[in-house]
Amino acid sequence: MGRKSDAGDRILAAGAKLFGQRAYASIGVAEISAEAGVPKGSFYYFFPSKQALALAVVNEHWKHQRADWLRILTAPDSLAERLRALFVSTAEVQKQAVNGTGAVVGCLFGNLALEVSAQDDPVRARLQEIFDEQIDIVETAIGAAVEAGELTVPAPRQTAKAIVAQIEGMVLFAKLFNDPGQLDQLWQNSMRLLGVEGARAAV
Amino acid sequence: MGRKSDAGDRILAAGAKLFGQRAYASIGVAEISAEAGVPKGSFYYFFPSKQALALAVVNEHWKHQRADWLRILTAPDSLAERLRALFVSTAEVQKQAVNGTGAVVGCLFGNLALEVSAQDDPVRARLQEIFDEQIDIVETAIGAAVEAGELTVPAPRQTAKAIVAQIEGMVLFAKLFNDPGQLDQLWQNSMRLLGVEGARAAV
Repeated sequence: MGRKSDAGDRILAAGAKLFGQRAYASIGVAEISAEAGVPKGSFYYFFPSKQALALAVVNEHWKHQRADWLRILTAPDSLAERLRALFVSTAEVQKQAVNGTGAVVGCLFGNLALEVSAQDDPVRARLQEIFDEQIDIVETAIGAAVEAGELTVPAPRQTAKAIVAQIEGMVLFAKLFNDPGQLDQLWQNSMRLLGVEGARAAV
Repeated sequence: MGRKSDAGDRILAAGAKLFGQRAYASIGVAEISAEAGVPKGSFYYFFPSKQALALAVVNEHWKHQRADWLRILTAPDSLAERLRALFVSTAEVQKQAVNGTGAVVGCLFGNLALEVSAQDDPVRARLQEIFDEQIDIVETAIGAAVEAGELTVPAPRQTAKAIVAQIEGMVLFAKLFNDPGQLDQLWQNSMRLLGVEGARAAV
């Protein structure tokens, strides 16, 4: 037991760890409390429910990832370089997870998105907002590159969404095959989605 | 209780239904047996474990989906038309799910892939094989189109994998937003991954 003042933080960290490793539905308040080293009663002092903790974990994760994405995707480089930096950073997170836990953890948002099935789940609503915001950030980066005359993109929003979908799909493969190297294709695939370096139609 | 001879089929159907709706980890043999209308003891007459049932469900699902993919992707049409037919079929499956249960069920393989965390899980190994086979089927379709002079693709395997990743990513969005219409972009995104109809680099 640590000081009460950091018990909330430890519960948050325990939730982030467990939700990142296993199915949300299979993890209970008792296990989270044990992982955090707090009595179960303490849990409810900080969070009214497991769902409330999940929302807090998701918001905390996005706060950091959002800052990373904004920093990387607004850097004074070409769009190609900015995307490359984003994917290097994405792969690095998964490589660190492999070094730490032996397993690619994948994307917390994607993992939860495939699991929250109730239509009125506030976690689902929050994940929708976060993916929309990820697409916004990529769309803005594309827009800046178009404005700078780097390339032309007929449908920036659709392209941004395709890139975020490509990230989720390749992260799924990285997790399934426990191989962060799967993410090495993300940059080239995204260049193709942007119409750069694509294969040429022969006819 | 139905006849004993179809109890195994009913357990399989119950597993397919429940695994398609909720987290694998949250579903037990008792619930599957109740859904199938068989005593729990009968379950173990047909399947040694929940994991064995999951493998059987995955194999049954892939048997049908594989037949669909092969039929559609070897049809005597252009690659663009074959891919369009595949994505129409993919969207149709999700639209039927919405009509039947009110929810986009997503991809059984993707849902399970994000959940099976144990590295030695036989379900995980089977999912790896299935995704590899999906990529094989798309790669073969691309190869046939290249051979027919329809287009040139410098890295058919990587492109096939990017297309399957794109399907998984967009199906995730369809499930999260409960909107099969998200899949309408799959064809255009795949054309871009193939280097067809992409945006043009200005420089």
